[in-house]
Amino acid sequence: MERVSDRADASRRRLLQAAADELIATGDVEVAAVARRAGMSAGLPYRYFGTRSGLMSALLEDFYERLIADTVLGHYEGATWLERWRAQVATWVEHMYADPLAPVVLGRMVGDARVAALEAQCFKRVIDLGAKHFAAGQAEGHVAGDRDPELLAAAVVGGMRAILAIVLDQDPRPDQQAVMREVWLFTVSALGVTGDRDGGAP
Amino acid sequence: MERVSDRADASRRRLLQAAADELIATGDVEVAAVARRAGMSAGLPYRYFGTRSGLMSALLEDFYERLIADTVLGHYEGATWLERWRAQVATWVEHMYADPLAPVVLGRMVGDARVAALEAQCFKRVIDLGAKHFAAGQAEGHVAGDRDPELLAAAVVGGMRAILAIVLDQDPRPDQQAVMREVWLFTVSALGVTGDRDGGAP
Repeated sequence: MERVSDRADASRRRLLQAAADELIATGDVEVAAVARRAGMSAGLPYRYFGTRSGLMSALLEDFYERLIADTVLGHYEGATWLERWRAQVATWVEHMYADPLAPVVLGRMVGDARVAALEAQCFKRVIDLGAKHFAAGQAEGHVAGDRDPELLAAAVVGGMRAILAIVLDQDPRPDQQAVMREVWLFTVSALGVTGDRDGGAP
Repeated sequence: MERVSDRADASRRRLLQAAADELIATGDVEVAAVARRAGMSAGLPYRYFGTRSGLMSALLEDFYERLIADTVLGHYEGATWLERWRAQVATWVEHMYADPLAPVVLGRMVGDARVAALEAQCFKRVIDLGAKHFAAGQAEGHVAGDRDPELLAAAVVGGMRAILAIVLDQDPRPDQQAVMREVWLFTVSALGVTGDRDGGAP
């Protein structure tokens, strides 16, 4: 027997997917259009998300949760910190190229104060995780030791993000491998990686 | 005799200043509150800016115009590209620390689709100017020659911006000279500057 909460989860997920599709197609989230797209009654988005702002916040949280689970908290193979960092950067570029919401979120999603605050908070979370990661890279001697890990993480994540905001907005998009090369060279330069910068990659 | 257009300019400027003050104080721009703050009638902001969105767009344009005039298009003394770049980075950090609107704009200003599109367009303009500047640095041999100037500019500007977004949000703010050091080391590393990285600075 299907439980009520399972059905609720499925409806919530269907609405989120419809909201994402609506945002990608129109650049905005109109609640009535989202309900239509999901084939649900006009009142349902409000029941699940309270307000338009609640729906957009849930969408944004979902985007960052997937991004963080997939790329920041992922497990990477590699003998050294640098090899694992390379695998992580490659996964990040791949994820951004594959997620149709990425260009919308990176190109400034339209929202109210709550959405803007949530976006800033999600970005800060990525930076905090990055700071820990780069501090570990400093401890292993791969990352320049005289730098503040938090500001270094802000710079590297902010820079990677800005590169992707530019390329995902182009039509056609530039070749993913060429972009990966630029992102990779940017990160190893910015991190002050010396010596072998390939991270064991072919 | 004061001309009508002079008076209109002064009113427009007074409204923009009030809107900036309102945004800094409350994080949002309420048109009626802006008119009150400027000591003007409630209808005047609409006469000058059309809509709330028009007012916010004008505010954002004003912010970027000042930033670009002050830092991107400024004239810098220095014998080499690197010396001039250092002067420019220092001016940029100073401008960001001094402009009370900077933390609001960098921390995601709340706006509608028009404001978001304008923000993306202003950021793109800074990147385009940066790309030209870095191509000149490549020609002079200071900047790594094997990199795409546009993506490099996106990365460097995006990284600088993210550092400032973090530090301007802190209370108290970290020491400006310490932040300048981090920003400077980030840019010279990311640009692939080799040899003397001081740019002739003391």
